[in-house]
Amino acid sequence: MKIVCQKSNLLNGVQTVSRAVPNKTTMSILECILIDASNNIITLTANDMDLGIETIIEGDIRESGIIALDAKIFLDMVRKLPENVITIETDANYKTLITCEKAKFTIMGKSGEDFSYLPVVEKENSVRLSQFSLKEMVRQTCFSIADNDSNKLMTGELFEINGNELKMVSSDGHRISIRKIELRESYEPRKVIVPGKTLNEVSRILPGDADSMLTVYFTSKHIVFEFDNTVVVSRLIEGEYFNIDRMLSGDYETKVKVNKKELLNCIDRATLLTREGDRKPIVIRITDDSMELRIDSALGSMCEDMDIEKEGRDLLIGFNPKFLIDALRVVDDEEIQLYMVNPKAPCFIKNDVEDYIYLILPVSLVTSYSH
Amino acid sequence: MKIVCQKSNLLNGVQTVSRAVPNKTTMSILECILIDASNNIITLTANDMDLGIETIIEGDIRESGIIALDAKIFLDMVRKLPENVITIETDANYKTLITCEKAKFTIMGKSGEDFSYLPVVEKENSVRLSQFSLKEMVRQTCFSIADNDSNKLMTGELFEINGNELKMVSSDGHRISIRKIELRESYEPRKVIVPGKTLNEVSRILPGDADSMLTVYFTSKHIVFEFDNTVVVSRLIEGEYFNIDRMLSGDYETKVKVNKKELLNCIDRATLLTREGDRKPIVIRITDDSMELRIDSALGSMCEDMDIEKEGRDLLIGFNPKFLIDALRVVDDEEIQLYMVNPKAPCFIKNDVEDYIYLILPVSLVTSYSH
Repeated sequence: MKIVCQKSNLLNGVQTVSRAVPNKTTMSILECILIDASNNIITLTANDMDLGIETIIEGDIRESGIIALDAKIFLDMVRKLPENVITIETDANYKTLITCEKAKFTIMGKSGEDFSYLPVVEKENSVRLSQFSLKEMVRQTCFSIADNDSNKLMTGELFEINGNELKMVSSDGHRISIRKIELRESYEPRKVIVPGKTLNEVSRILPGDADSMLTVYFTSKHIVFEFDNTVVVSRLIEGEYFNIDRMLSGDYETKVKVNKKELLNCIDRATLLTREGDRKPIVIRITDDSMELRIDSALGSMCEDMDIEKEGRDLLIGFNPKFLIDALRVVDDEEIQLYMVNPKAPCFIKNDVEDYIYLILPVSLVTSYSH
Repeated sequence: MKIVCQKSNLLNGVQTVSRAVPNKTTMSILECILIDASNNIITLTANDMDLGIETIIEGDIRESGIIALDAKIFLDMVRKLPENVITIETDANYKTLITCEKAKFTIMGKSGEDFSYLPVVEKENSVRLSQFSLKEMVRQTCFSIADNDSNKLMTGELFEINGNELKMVSSDGHRISIRKIELRESYEPRKVIVPGKTLNEVSRILPGDADSMLTVYFTSKHIVFEFDNTVVVSRLIEGEYFNIDRMLSGDYETKVKVNKKELLNCIDRATLLTREGDRKPIVIRITDDSMELRIDSALGSMCEDMDIEKEGRDLLIGFNPKFLIDALRVVDDEEIQLYMVNPKAPCFIKNDVEDYIYLILPVSLVTSYSH
């Protein structure tokens, strides 16, 4: 194989597919990027068996062929070469010569025989949306994906299409994040669970322009994201997602309108008195026109009053400060609304059109104080 | 005690003195910053017994007094408070109330009785230089301070004054870094060894303007840096520094002039084939007008030719690539000169006026290849 391409093109491609290279694996072929120049186009592929990424790069094929190169070394190499034309040339023993200007690297490649190409997926049932929308939806929901897999379903996000609405839902058991957008067209109803890792990686490699589109395909086992010159294929998580609708209710006893940034800064200050793992709740006392936030820990205490607009009853309620911070960080509104029923029922952070809903379970104050 | 000051002033002060707070200590008072408002000025002090920093901050003293506060919590707190006026108020039990706008923190302070104030040092034998010069000299020499203390002298830098010349020298046994500047006045000859940690911390807190000056005082046991509203006092390292002059000679057999950035990039590329600890040397083959750099490792090989101007003999010599990179990174010249004698004698990187000299011992190629 002999190919010639611009460093910038090659680097983009290698960075993109590298997202599917596992950090740790016992199968050394999975640590490789496959360069396939056997069919008049140059494709780069990486595949950890759950997630696979393939991208086409521009370049000249001087001699067709295939080679698998260690992803980490190859990425470092391309990154550090000058901004110029890079030549990659292999011999019959898979020895690979990578040259750019006066620099010459020699590394051993692999045949690529054992390499797992992406599964062939029938491209039916496509959904189109803007790259920007998907990136935003992932950013605004992925923080509440569970990070351990004691419940496999919770390590993924619900991806639900209903007419022209796309809804994404994540939950770690203590909170639920819901984000909805309107699609340009209507589609068949569809519900799948996508691994959190897949969504994070896709969102990372998506350029994310509001004008650029992205096509999503579904099969019973896989989801495929197609954009620009890149295809991402991921296994789905099997099972039925929780019925979240029954947890959402429109009733409330207390409604608070507050400046988001002020609230976020205040909670952020409060947390400096907590140490990881000591689970001190932030206690919120809501009265007319004012909300007092308070935290007490072994290190000291903090107390702060905030101006609010309030409807309904006074309330004393406690939260894990991290859960409030996570949700407040991703909401773009300047003013937010909190809806609460009582100190034991979930609090909702949502806007009037409900295109985002963050449900957070409160912390029992009696229990936490008695510890 | 009750004091009132602007957040920005307080934050600057706390950040400055925090550099002398040890990361780990069994004496909890050393983890504190002392606020002393007993003498019509507000001073902040931290002292780990080897290094002490004191700074004066602007503010109103409403009630004179002294309090010691946990440095880490206090710094975090001040950082996260709004940009406004901060009030610090203590009661008879050292309970400390810190307020800013509507935020109120309560933490327990300490009396400050056990706190070690900075040693009183007679301010004789002062030397004046610009803050910028000291910062630059530290940056250009500190990388070759030894990082373990098997030889105590090597964990410090020689600080030598001779007439109007200030010379700083560091060495870890494999290389020597020397930097000289001309002072505006002449001083008595003087030679001390300053701990590397002290120089790093001073250089970090120095604003470093070329117009701002700094005064350095010496005693037999201490060095004092005085600038703006801040005083840094550090113990000296006792002993006699190596006689480096006998290692410096003007003779050479091979002289190479080369573009610094190209050489640095080339060595940087070569190191991606080395893993930490495998000590693969970079092998440099110098011939007329050209220098070939080569590295061979288990991961592959790299080879690159560079254009040079050469005087003297051809040479094949090997180096630890990290030592070359460290020196090349801090030299500001576009073109640099390498002086070499033979494959076993040190290489010098220096300019004609010798205001910087980097001596690097080569690696024996026979030994390293036979491994």
